[in-house]
Amino acid sequence: MLDKTTTFNLLYDFYRPLLKESQRTFMELYYVEDWSLGEIAEHYSISRQAVHDRIKRVEKALIAFESALRLVEKFEQRKKLVRELKQKLRTGTDISQIEQLLDRLLEID
Amino acid sequence: MLDKTTTFNLLYDFYRPLLKESQRTFMELYYVEDWSLGEIAEHYSISRQAVHDRIKRVEKALIAFESALRLVEKFEQRKKLVRELKQKLRTGTDISQIEQLLDRLLEID
Repeated sequence: MLDKTTTFNLLYDFYRPLLKESQRTFMELYYVEDWSLGEIAEHYSISRQAVHDRIKRVEKALIAFESALRLVEKFEQRKKLVRELKQKLRTGTDISQIEQLLDRLLEID
Repeated sequence: MLDKTTTFNLLYDFYRPLLKESQRTFMELYYVEDWSLGEIAEHYSISRQAVHDRIKRVEKALIAFESALRLVEKFEQRKKLVRELKQKLRTGTDISQIEQLLDRLLEID
């Protein structure tokens, strides 16, 4: 199970292009640069609550994108399959089995 | 170079979850079921021009999604890399080279 910061960093990595400029700024500061809500609030002269609400909204949007497109989930599936492939290569599994795994890799889309 | 129908079918495949229900219905009929603009217009009792405009708007949205996320482009890159991998497997390339290609496959994300 990933912690919240890692999860949202990952989601942000995949879906950043779908966010608006202002949404990106807040995510960048809070999740990537690790600013506190208070620091962001002070920097933009808005309330801590306003910063909190905006970040919550972006988090919701990121979760909605993932539940629609599942890019992070598919990426994790591909990573697992590649690990499996490497292991099979090293143990000298026959080519047809490796080719089947490669085909499965393409089906994750 | 893919023709227009194939291109939009492919884009629709990847980005359908991001479209609204009504946008999906029109894309489904026009691109997947191959209805004409006139047939869709008649079925929904709206003008041919209105159908045309709606489909154009969805096409624009699909192009915008692809230019943001490049899912179709990445899928094509992965397909090409898997073809390359299969060829190398058959010609007995050494494992370290194949592993490098597998790592490149994961970097396409």
